Amino acid sequence: MTIMRENDFIKRIRSSVEPSKNPLVKGIGDDCAVIPLDKSRHTLLTTDAFVEGVHFKRAYFRPEQIGEKAMAVNISDICAMGGMPKYALVTIGFPKKEKQAFIDRVYCGIIGAAKRFNADIVGGDTVSSPSLFISITVWGEAEKREIMMRSGARPGDGLFVTGFLGSSAAGLDFLKRLKARATGAKELLAVNSHLQPQPRLREGRLLAKSGIVTACIDVSDGLVNDTMRICGESGTGAVIYAENLPVCASTQAIASRFGKDPVDYALYGGEDFELLFTVGKKDIGRLVKLARARSVPVFRAGVITAGKSVLIERNGRKSRPAEGAIWNHF
Amino acid sequence: MTIMRENDFIKRIRSSVEPSKNPLVKGIGDDCAVIPLDKSRHTLLTTDAFVEGVHFKRAYFRPEQIGEKAMAVNISDICAMGGMPKYALVTIGFPKKEKQAFIDRVYCGIIGAAKRFNADIVGGDTVSSPSLFISITVWGEAEKREIMMRSGARPGDGLFVTGFLGSSAAGLDFLKRLKARATGAKELLAVNSHLQPQPRLREGRLLAKSGIVTACIDVSDGLVNDTMRICGESGTGAVIYAENLPVCASTQAIASRFGKDPVDYALYGGEDFELLFTVGKKDIGRLVKLARARSVPVFRAGVITAGKSVLIERNGRKSRPAEGAIWNHF
Repeated sequence: MTIMRENDFIKRIRSSVEPSKNPLVKGIGDDCAVIPLDKSRHTLLTTDAFVEGVHFKRAYFRPEQIGEKAMAVNISDICAMGGMPKYALVTIGFPKKEKQAFIDRVYCGIIGAAKRFNADIVGGDTVSSPSLFISITVWGEAEKREIMMRSGARPGDGLFVTGFLGSSAAGLDFLKRLKARATGAKELLAVNSHLQPQPRLREGRLLAKSGIVTACIDVSDGLVNDTMRICGESGTGAVIYAENLPVCASTQAIASRFGKDPVDYALYGGEDFELLFTVGKKDIGRLVKLARARSVPVFRAGVITAGKSVLIERNGRKSRPAEGAIWNHF
Repeated sequence: MTIMRENDFIKRIRSSVEPSKNPLVKGIGDDCAVIPLDKSRHTLLTTDAFVEGVHFKRAYFRPEQIGEKAMAVNISDICAMGGMPKYALVTIGFPKKEKQAFIDRVYCGIIGAAKRFNADIVGGDTVSSPSLFISITVWGEAEKREIMMRSGARPGDGLFVTGFLGSSAAGLDFLKRLKARATGAKELLAVNSHLQPQPRLREGRLLAKSGIVTACIDVSDGLVNDTMRICGESGTGAVIYAENLPVCASTQAIASRFGKDPVDYALYGGEDFELLFTVGKKDIGRLVKLARARSVPVFRAGVITAGKSVLIERNGRKSRPAEGAIWNHF
């Protein structure tokens, strides 16, 4: 479904879910639900589905990459709140005639990604389905005082991102137009960003422990859209510095090949799974120092404002995001 | 996928999942994963997917019933371990062209069932998908000492069930052959068992608190198959008393209409979601008394044996279950 339709839908679901007696720190409206675990820790719960023809095509993805990405997008949600993955439930639906070897390879990718991030697969479901889908739920844990939510950004906070933006969208564009796997060295980085995104566990933990992050989200639907989400939950606006955005040479090469503006990839492209976060003005120096000391990339993407809208500053001018340019899976 | 293929697949997944440092009471191989929560309680995690054309058809199901059953089958897994549902994550995949009113009605059924069983919807995902599916994860909680597993049955234990068997399969047969919703009063009970199965929360809690249950499972894939699962996890065999099985008049009416043996529905029909459980010989009197006092239906379905196979006793003769008669969704 489109982002706008999904946002509407989430709003309606959220309003129909009444509070109850079960203790809950955070329900719908962040990367994970937050449920009290013990005196010092909370459980983080997240679920994401990965559907053939919508989120991936076999023409581009090896079966292992399908499984790995299905798990990675879930792990990324745990990272965005500063947690550590612990357990996972994995459901796969596939047609009866599907070859077992293909499913085994998909599952291999799922297990590999789970192991790399220390998540144990503790259950799941396998069902027949007209089309292939993977639905994963991940349980993470975080120290109460370390959890990063979307809702804490304040006017004046700096807006930062942990790595290149637009790579995944550029990579996907390349794959779609050429209808084949990339072999050219120039395009490979962007293409791999799309096929094998790397959840930012180390970066998320570092930011969570620093205690200076006011809001955090992972960039799943594009910088503009995910900044809007932080602003929506925080009751703020933001200005994005378009000329500052970290765009890698691979994305630039693809953009120039297709006559596109690489900044558009960075603003509107989805599925980079970098962390997008805010830090109070007085802590920006500390952040930069910390990131340098730990060799974690950190780029300035903008500033949080007291307004309600997200604006893009370019050539000294501020403008609203392009209508209809918001990321949509396929 | 077929039950046999699924069982194979689960075996292989189970063997590829190594133990880790994360504490875990029970992983793959029961109705729920069991994760330590606090001094006295465990968390129960379960996930089940519900797929159009496989688990349901719109020709039979109202949209609300689709949502309700998708939630009910998950709640039932919590009940089977003696727990209380607490939280749920709900993912819906549907085609872009799907009418919003239809999805809203499906969601209405999901929310209604969640509320009835005190589960709060705390997150989820909405995705485009070539075909409609619902994937739900439910978090339940149970007192450590009350949790009922599949693995505790011992030779000599009585095998019991909390209600009618075969109703759902008979109801589905009726719906499939007549390709329409049932209106005849006689068939209505069985048809409703299929369309709106009732998770046995009250029964599960009563059994869990009694402290006399040695093993428990919910009947999702038929009495024979689910008895095999208890036996597989417990390292036992069983004899099912075919003449004793509780079959309602509605199932009998459908069987006679289609020239079928109603006992076959009871032995091999799936999706009744009654609880199937075992009780030590010396506690059977207590169980019967307790069930009577609390007006909970309890039927004797067989006995656990020291052998390895599940046999069916009928007319004084024991035989192996019918090959190929095992329940399969559609």
